[in-house]
Amino acid sequence: MHRYRSHTCAALRDTNVGETVRLSGWAHRVRDHGGLLFIDLRDHYGLTQIVVDPDSPAFKTAETIRSEWVVKITGTVKARSPETVNPKLPTGAVELFAEDIEILSASKELPLPVFGELDYPEDVRLTYRFLDLRRETLHRNIMRRTQIIAAMRRRMTESAFTEFSTPILTASSPEGARDFLVPSRIHQGKFYALPQAPQQYKQLIMMSGFDRYFQIAPCFRDEDPRADRLPGEFYQLDVEMSFVEQEDIFQTMEPVIRGVFEDFADGKPVSQTFERIPHAEAMRKYGSDKPDLRNPIEMSAVTDAFAGSGFKVFAGMIAADPEVEVWAIPAKRKDGQDAIGRAFCDRMNSWAQGQGQPGLGYIFWREEEGAVAGAGPLAKNIGPERTEGLREKLGLGTGDACFFVAGKPKTFVSFAGAARTQVGEELDLVDRDQFKLAWIIDFPFYEWDEELKKVDFAHNPFSMPQGGMEALQTQDPLSLKAFQYDIVCNGFEIASGGIRNQQPETMVKAFEIAGYSREEVEQRFGGLYRAFQYGAPPHGGMAAGVDRIVMLLCGVKNLREITMFPMNQQAYDLLMAAPNEASPVQLKELGIRVAAAAKIT
Amino acid sequence: MHRYRSHTCAALRDTNVGETVRLSGWAHRVRDHGGLLFIDLRDHYGLTQIVVDPDSPAFKTAETIRSEWVVKITGTVKARSPETVNPKLPTGAVELFAEDIEILSASKELPLPVFGELDYPEDVRLTYRFLDLRRETLHRNIMRRTQIIAAMRRRMTESAFTEFSTPILTASSPEGARDFLVPSRIHQGKFYALPQAPQQYKQLIMMSGFDRYFQIAPCFRDEDPRADRLPGEFYQLDVEMSFVEQEDIFQTMEPVIRGVFEDFADGKPVSQTFERIPHAEAMRKYGSDKPDLRNPIEMSAVTDAFAGSGFKVFAGMIAADPEVEVWAIPAKRKDGQDAIGRAFCDRMNSWAQGQGQPGLGYIFWREEEGAVAGAGPLAKNIGPERTEGLREKLGLGTGDACFFVAGKPKTFVSFAGAARTQVGEELDLVDRDQFKLAWIIDFPFYEWDEELKKVDFAHNPFSMPQGGMEALQTQDPLSLKAFQYDIVCNGFEIASGGIRNQQPETMVKAFEIAGYSREEVEQRFGGLYRAFQYGAPPHGGMAAGVDRIVMLLCGVKNLREITMFPMNQQAYDLLMAAPNEASPVQLKELGIRVAAAAKIT
Repeated sequence: MHRYRSHTCAALRDTNVGETVRLSGWAHRVRDHGGLLFIDLRDHYGLTQIVVDPDSPAFKTAETIRSEWVVKITGTVKARSPETVNPKLPTGAVELFAEDIEILSASKELPLPVFGELDYPEDVRLTYRFLDLRRETLHRNIMRRTQIIAAMRRRMTESAFTEFSTPILTASSPEGARDFLVPSRIHQGKFYALPQAPQQYKQLIMMSGFDRYFQIAPCFRDEDPRADRLPGEFYQLDVEMSFVEQEDIFQTMEPVIRGVFEDFADGKPVSQTFERIPHAEAMRKYGSDKPDLRNPIEMSAVTDAFAGSGFKVFAGMIAADPEVEVWAIPAKRKDGQDAIGRAFCDRMNSWAQGQGQPGLGYIFWREEEGAVAGAGPLAKNIGPERTEGLREKLGLGTGDACFFVAGKPKTFVSFAGAARTQVGEELDLVDRDQFKLAWIIDFPFYEWDEELKKVDFAHNPFSMPQGGMEALQTQDPLSLKAFQYDIVCNGFEIASGGIRNQQPETMVKAFEIAGYSREEVEQRFGGLYRAFQYGAPPHGGMAAGVDRIVMLLCGVKNLREITMFPMNQQAYDLLMAAPNEASPVQLKELGIRVAAAAKIT
Repeated sequence: MHRYRSHTCAALRDTNVGETVRLSGWAHRVRDHGGLLFIDLRDHYGLTQIVVDPDSPAFKTAETIRSEWVVKITGTVKARSPETVNPKLPTGAVELFAEDIEILSASKELPLPVFGELDYPEDVRLTYRFLDLRRETLHRNIMRRTQIIAAMRRRMTESAFTEFSTPILTASSPEGARDFLVPSRIHQGKFYALPQAPQQYKQLIMMSGFDRYFQIAPCFRDEDPRADRLPGEFYQLDVEMSFVEQEDIFQTMEPVIRGVFEDFADGKPVSQTFERIPHAEAMRKYGSDKPDLRNPIEMSAVTDAFAGSGFKVFAGMIAADPEVEVWAIPAKRKDGQDAIGRAFCDRMNSWAQGQGQPGLGYIFWREEEGAVAGAGPLAKNIGPERTEGLREKLGLGTGDACFFVAGKPKTFVSFAGAARTQVGEELDLVDRDQFKLAWIIDFPFYEWDEELKKVDFAHNPFSMPQGGMEALQTQDPLSLKAFQYDIVCNGFEIASGGIRNQQPETMVKAFEIAGYSREEVEQRFGGLYRAFQYGAPPHGGMAAGVDRIVMLLCGVKNLREITMFPMNQQAYDLLMAAPNEASPVQLKELGIRVAAAAKIT
């Protein structure tokens, strides 16, 4: 028999009854039932119930076993009596009667229990991550993560993509976040950078004549801790294709992403076709470029209903500035739901004030004398005719309400989006058990940088502006759209990409408009700029956030629940004790010194 | 029709004759044959011959096309005349008559030609790597590399392993090479390290209750440039398993490695069973722990033949020191090969002197008066009887020779191994067209560090000593063997592994013998040492060198030929211009300064 096991802890069935078998694993739970000892023995694969009889030669050893000891158990498989069969456990029809037990590794008192999965503070969980990872939920999430990544690889390979690894020690990249630097020993005083993304490399791979690239790519950004981002490294499914237009990327990647979601959706509906929503439309309808489309609320402009009306606040704003608009956030109750009344509307108004807004205007409709009638201060001010016009336009009825925001759209749009989300969630209009995927397209190429008072790239400077060189030369930069797109799911951006600008002169012109000289382009993106001059194929691609997709598919809200060995929010690795001091020899070899102010005392 | 192509450049066959198609790609070669223009159009997939007739509306544009311009060509597929069919090209039965040509991207004068693959200096190749990578051989090697890695992944997955990524920003690791450091911004004065290997993490994954781990793992060592190692990063197929003994690793990994070799051996024989050679035997037979088993020469000790003989140099050494041995390196000519005579033996003697040795003693056998007789100075000195005894013992005959080295084996063993290689290669005894794989087992656990005059770990300090704690407590440390093994192929170590020491007290004892205190163990390997105390399963694994395996399977001797974007031997990335200076803001944020001596002027 094998030194450690003849079966895994998930393998035994009633067909094994009578066999002598050997299992190894962790003592998940130890119970004493009137003399008989029961041990739930756990390994990576599952659980098997061990029974140790007081007459067994193994009993004396068994009595010493505590939670999380690693033990090897040899014995005979017996059927459980019908009333003790556990149908929830694959091995629940049998138990193993121990005849011989060897303790392979004892455990000290546990700082965090594995059985039961009680909530524990982050620092304990991360210091003893090897115990935390034994817990059922986290163990399952981590396995699910690996399966999701394997599914991405499989689907990309089946779509004729080849996986290439790009260098991790490289030059500063232009993604705009802060780089991690690596001092060079051989070139003292100089530094490598860890890649924020393999953007330039994947474009260079296209310049090198390869056709369809992908990579499950480690990326590095030295950013300040945020709730939805672990410090340090993250992974993206990075993709690039040659001789393609935007439509080809959509046709190729939509089935991959949809397929991965379907593989792990546990039967929840996944969008079969990804709606394509122009960026400007997304902002107007949803107040966000990553709308949660499970929320049925669609906003619209109803400026006319308030222009010259008795609601002087809005009417005055509209009269004073032609850019001012009034947007409606219609709250249509679900079938069978209670009517939305003044109490809810007032609560939303308070919520808006909590967000730093002056308030949130509203109308709600109720039955008055057998007819539907708008109520609330706004309705009173604009009068029944305009109120009824609004109701008809928005398709609302008795028991529904509508909220209104007014001003210049760009100043209120993100608040309007938040209000849409708040209304939808508060009224439980969001059908959570589905994955609603969509492309957001036609992103603006440039935006106005209010701080620096200049035009700057809105997103990726490597994207091709729609209309190309001619558009750059002739159109208002702020009106230009890019061949740039995102995939959104349930309120999160899960992928982003574009068709690249591979024409060196167009690239120089695009950067010139954003205030960069040809020399700066050559210096910052030398490798890529050089490559564009020696036969550059049209190309484009995207990058999908692996961590975000895994979070959605595991139904968790914290990256720690899907990351094997995360750092804490202070970018400290409690398990390995990193970062740590360097030795004087190391620093001398690298030609660097720790600045006096940073010295550790 | 698609904007860029209806087919790839490898797709057209005679079944397409008459169709209107569109191709895009690079002008690989442009020829003018009496007015007709021929363009070999190349993409990732292959080549198609384009013909442009002077009557074609595309002719004017075609005349401007130069090598490596990216063009789009629309036209009609025609069959080639029988005498112009190119059977070597998959598309060789047809050619495309161009009707419309669009230049998608021109190219400046090429600094390095793609067609023809002329040898070019390294700095040009690396600066213009995107051109270098378009060349047929390198392009094919890089694709082969990706296929080999995909095969590793597939075979590991089929063997029920799960791929986990381990952190890249971590703590200094104990592999013994120099770490790359990454200054922490949030913890100024402290540094992360890039992993030299995921050794501690993979063991922690086993402690976390996962069972079969693998990873195509990026590893980082800041070592000085060497011919067979690129600076910076490399990849290994990293593997770990729980509840296993050494034999389980062999049974699991031998089919994976053999399978990968067979997949890419192009029909060359691959060892069906890997011979298992104890380390001590490998050293004695082959003078190396990574022997090239394609070389049939096996060395053996023939000390007795020289003890008390007339060859006073050897006889005196043997008499003076019982540790002295004489080893024979027998050179048996292949069937039909010319006799090995004095000239070859003298050449080997000169070669040895070139290696800093006093010389290389030899005997060669020739026919003298119808009988076989030893010749050369050694034969003369030890006399015909001892000479004939040697010949019989070594199984040599007329036309064969034997070389001899004498001294303490540990001082001459590596020279003996080199001499074995030299003899085998010079005599063409090595059958190159095969992959001979073997396990080297029973590595010594400790070795004597002559410099520090102390016992130190011979290889991996995390390996389990054979005999465990008892052996550590009772045996001479230098006699201990480890559960540690390598896989060798054709003279290269391609994998290395071991069964781990997962018992904290045994670990402490093993380090104590090598001169490390318990406190040092806790401090240097805190995460792992801590984990061992909370229920540690027996486990072991290995790591195979991806780059080395790819080199063997591509038949190349330089890592540059199988690495997409390598740095040069000065650890400089000519394509991306890395490393580079950091800005004062970056350095200030990181709390480091460039030492005055390292400042760039």
